[in-house]
Amino acid sequence: MPLTLEQINAADRAEATRLLDGLYEHSPWIAEAALAQRPFRSLSHLKQAMADVVRAAGEDRQLALIRAHPELAGKAMVARTLTSESTDEQSRAGLAHCSPQEFARLQQLNADYNARFGFPFILAVRGPRGTGLARQQIIETFARRLENPADFERAEALRNIHRIVELRLNDKFGVEPALGHLVWDWQESLAQHSDPGYADKGQLTVTYLTDAHRAAARQLVADMRECGFDEVEIDAVGNVVGRYRGAAAGARYLLTGSHYDTVRNGGRYDGRLGIFTPMACVRELARAGRRLPFGIEVVGFAEEEGQRYKATFLGSGALIGHFNPAWLEQKDAAGIPMREAMRDAGLPATLEAIAALRRDPSRYLGFVEVHIEQGPVLNELDLPLGIVTSINGGVRLQCEVTGMASHAGTTPMDRRRDAAVAVAELALFVEQRARRDGDSVGTIGMLEVPSGSINVVPGRCLFSLDLRAPDDPQRDAMVADVLAKLKEICTRRGLRFVVEETMRAAAAPSAPDWQQRWERAVEALGVPLYRMPSGAGHDAMKLHEVMPQAMLFVRGQNSGISHNPLESTTSDDIDLAVRAFQRLLEDLAREQPAA
Amino acid sequence: MPLTLEQINAADRAEATRLLDGLYEHSPWIAEAALAQRPFRSLSHLKQAMADVVRAAGEDRQLALIRAHPELAGKAMVARTLTSESTDEQSRAGLAHCSPQEFARLQQLNADYNARFGFPFILAVRGPRGTGLARQQIIETFARRLENPADFERAEALRNIHRIVELRLNDKFGVEPALGHLVWDWQESLAQHSDPGYADKGQLTVTYLTDAHRAAARQLVADMRECGFDEVEIDAVGNVVGRYRGAAAGARYLLTGSHYDTVRNGGRYDGRLGIFTPMACVRELARAGRRLPFGIEVVGFAEEEGQRYKATFLGSGALIGHFNPAWLEQKDAAGIPMREAMRDAGLPATLEAIAALRRDPSRYLGFVEVHIEQGPVLNELDLPLGIVTSINGGVRLQCEVTGMASHAGTTPMDRRRDAAVAVAELALFVEQRARRDGDSVGTIGMLEVPSGSINVVPGRCLFSLDLRAPDDPQRDAMVADVLAKLKEICTRRGLRFVVEETMRAAAAPSAPDWQQRWERAVEALGVPLYRMPSGAGHDAMKLHEVMPQAMLFVRGQNSGISHNPLESTTSDDIDLAVRAFQRLLEDLAREQPAA
Repeated sequence: MPLTLEQINAADRAEATRLLDGLYEHSPWIAEAALAQRPFRSLSHLKQAMADVVRAAGEDRQLALIRAHPELAGKAMVARTLTSESTDEQSRAGLAHCSPQEFARLQQLNADYNARFGFPFILAVRGPRGTGLARQQIIETFARRLENPADFERAEALRNIHRIVELRLNDKFGVEPALGHLVWDWQESLAQHSDPGYADKGQLTVTYLTDAHRAAARQLVADMRECGFDEVEIDAVGNVVGRYRGAAAGARYLLTGSHYDTVRNGGRYDGRLGIFTPMACVRELARAGRRLPFGIEVVGFAEEEGQRYKATFLGSGALIGHFNPAWLEQKDAAGIPMREAMRDAGLPATLEAIAALRRDPSRYLGFVEVHIEQGPVLNELDLPLGIVTSINGGVRLQCEVTGMASHAGTTPMDRRRDAAVAVAELALFVEQRARRDGDSVGTIGMLEVPSGSINVVPGRCLFSLDLRAPDDPQRDAMVADVLAKLKEICTRRGLRFVVEETMRAAAAPSAPDWQQRWERAVEALGVPLYRMPSGAGHDAMKLHEVMPQAMLFVRGQNSGISHNPLESTTSDDIDLAVRAFQRLLEDLAREQPAA
Repeated sequence: MPLTLEQINAADRAEATRLLDGLYEHSPWIAEAALAQRPFRSLSHLKQAMADVVRAAGEDRQLALIRAHPELAGKAMVARTLTSESTDEQSRAGLAHCSPQEFARLQQLNADYNARFGFPFILAVRGPRGTGLARQQIIETFARRLENPADFERAEALRNIHRIVELRLNDKFGVEPALGHLVWDWQESLAQHSDPGYADKGQLTVTYLTDAHRAAARQLVADMRECGFDEVEIDAVGNVVGRYRGAAAGARYLLTGSHYDTVRNGGRYDGRLGIFTPMACVRELARAGRRLPFGIEVVGFAEEEGQRYKATFLGSGALIGHFNPAWLEQKDAAGIPMREAMRDAGLPATLEAIAALRRDPSRYLGFVEVHIEQGPVLNELDLPLGIVTSINGGVRLQCEVTGMASHAGTTPMDRRRDAAVAVAELALFVEQRARRDGDSVGTIGMLEVPSGSINVVPGRCLFSLDLRAPDDPQRDAMVADVLAKLKEICTRRGLRFVVEETMRAAAAPSAPDWQQRWERAVEALGVPLYRMPSGAGHDAMKLHEVMPQAMLFVRGQNSGISHNPLESTTSDDIDLAVRAFQRLLEDLAREQPAA
């Protein structure tokens, strides 16, 4: 008999602790302490309460928790002294059937890992969809994590423990994140299409209007049709558009979606999660035969990443009438103009057809977008969802400082014009200045002393600046301070500098009422509410120019790594995103007068 | 009638001022103020006194002095309103015969320069040997100096003014730096030999045992023979050795010399000045038929720069029995082993022959070496000569800091592991720490975020460290502090680092009695005494291991640039070096009992 949350909420403390036994390995104190937070409003709430207990327990108890776990394919497995849960998990991952080489490799990794960190390697060997990770994936992850800084790896071990508990909880309560699995399967299926030259290395690359890109569009069309959208089409720039009509003819639409193109060697969730999440909602509505007082228009944007052509946000831009006519003549690396690529894809490739994609904002309620976070914050805080307060505005600069190259041995310290030390001084200022705002970020991502020699004082130093903040005045104040500091440093040190602005993007603060809708939806799931700016740019920035918008972030695994095949999330987190979207739709339906 | 120093010293102030008229352009106040330093012991002393007046005059009067000069080929030349000295100088440089293109280019440069710096471009258009610079050289120098930082260029203008005055003084007093010119001509003649592929670009490259290198050796042999050396030979490693015997058979020798190989695209004075300076002294002795109580052995070392083969200090090393047998098998970029290069050069190429070069230190008084400074110090202080207190000991390290690459937009400042900012922090520490010692130097010459992107927080940063100090304990304390700081930074920031030591060279402090001999020689010339460490390594480091040594530095023009075709000095400074060497010989002769 699966457990219910009602049982846990009703039982006395000892009984509830017994019912929750076997979640945190050999550590019943965690569930016991979490019971103080009853009544639990959802499984998410219970998970969060337990994660909070671990977080508050301090380093010593956290280490004890980690050390309570068995090694992977280690002595305990061989001696059959694992807990039944671990036995089940390790055997599902096929660890009992390692080849002698695999077994030897795992033993070596166990020994190296333990020597380096002083605790056993812990990995949720049941994968993000709950199915087993392949042995090879486990070994690769093991080797990769051996390179992590020690404090980071301790946190990573705890995150894996929480994930193991999440999977054990699902078993104990007999629940499945069904909508999360649905989206998961769509994601996997869509990820089969990848541009040649990348696909064969197991990498995902889908750039604008390639064969893989068009195959992906066709699959989105098919998936949308199967969901029960009323109209599905590929528009003049390659966007896949699905419309699910409202209850009354002429009802306005909620616009939503994200992009399906990827960077080269990218992740499978970036963008796509924001197409599939509302698709799952529409599928549920259609299956129930329900119409809302408004329609839902889901757009899979064809282009956001600017990889094949320098035409970032081409897909969402077209919906607000932004399309640079010069783009049509722009050539890709193989010399193919965009116009030709469009014709090959069966698109009209005329400015008229593209201009016709422009939406009339009065026909829309607003725009919402679900996106994987692409950052470490939710992952580190053990939170599945985040409310976006603003898409940060950014400025990018390419800079050069020129001093005088001179002999490293013969030029006294007080006679140098060292370009690199000047940039070093600026780097520390940028760090400090961004930190002072709390939610600004500043990065020197490119840094180079061109043709530097070990015995030559740097005469030149090239570097980039990327400065972002949740609103434009905050960003501009930071940019001004950084440039003033650069000038001050160079004047004091007798250097010259050149700065070229290569990008300036306005911030897109969330519309307060739409942000509140996301907040109510997340709270209703019993998930803690966490507000955060979006450091990365998103399609919502474009729609922001013509209608209210707000975004929801979903936690990424592996520290939120993105633009990388290691980008990952879980069915459980996706499931929460779908259910949050459903709540938002219900909320909105209650607000709208039936037409 | 040329002026004499006695006249200046004897005249009353008004008369002496009149006699010195026409040195500093339209600025008689400088000579007048310098007269307070009378009696002048030498022309050097007078020059120094005037340079000190300019230095003490402050920025406003310095600018007025600079602005008192005419533009090169400017309106004043066209309108014939130049001072007679300027007319003479500009016409010697052929500026009155510019082509229309050259004239137009000079006018543009004048305009750009004036707009940038607010004063006219000043160049001692009579070259370092006193002959005219070619118009093309003038235009190139003009264009190059337009790129200088403003404060640096102001100092450069003043240095050129001092040089113009030096040449005017020679005219006024009817003196010629005859020994300086002699060495100058030897230098020019030797610089005709350059390795192919460089020579045709007007660059000087003479690497170990190439055709150019062997031609240079033959020329040194011929020049030494002409000087009157008793024995001249090319030894088993290609060193050119000249011996001028002492008064008595069996007298000990003073060993001296430097290297005649160069770096690729190098300067013509680096090394060679230390061969020619004592050659000029021997020539004077031989012409006078004089023998000293000791012999003089001048060695032109065949290899110091380690360019063709990684075998730095091969030439001087052979004299102290240092020769790595593996070097014979080492191949150059074209695959030619050193053994084969030696045979091609007619050398025995056996370890026995090389071992036989080892000197018996008891047969030598000590080793002295004259070298161009290869640094900016003497140039900036308007000093022609410097006394070396020690050849700095150095440690070189190649380092890597590893953090975690992450999204520059989505990773909050407090969640970063930015490898580059950590290195930036270290760079500032190195600067501060070296400065604290006063005479240590520390440099990060190579610095790179590999494959950095504008929007990615650097996960790795590679850099080099070059740390030098006048003695080994001081150097080691600095190295230890820098590495401790690196560790502290990385621990605090959660990063890892790897450090590889690639070089460690012991310091070579000058033998006090030999350093004092140089000091007495320099003081006797009326040149201010300035002590300084040598930041670069020199052949004297090798001889240091078996006998006392001390070095004399000669000012380099162009901020002491070296390992560059712009490396330069003047006949006047070389002349002072030869005369200092003569004084040292006399001093030493007085100390030695006649055998």
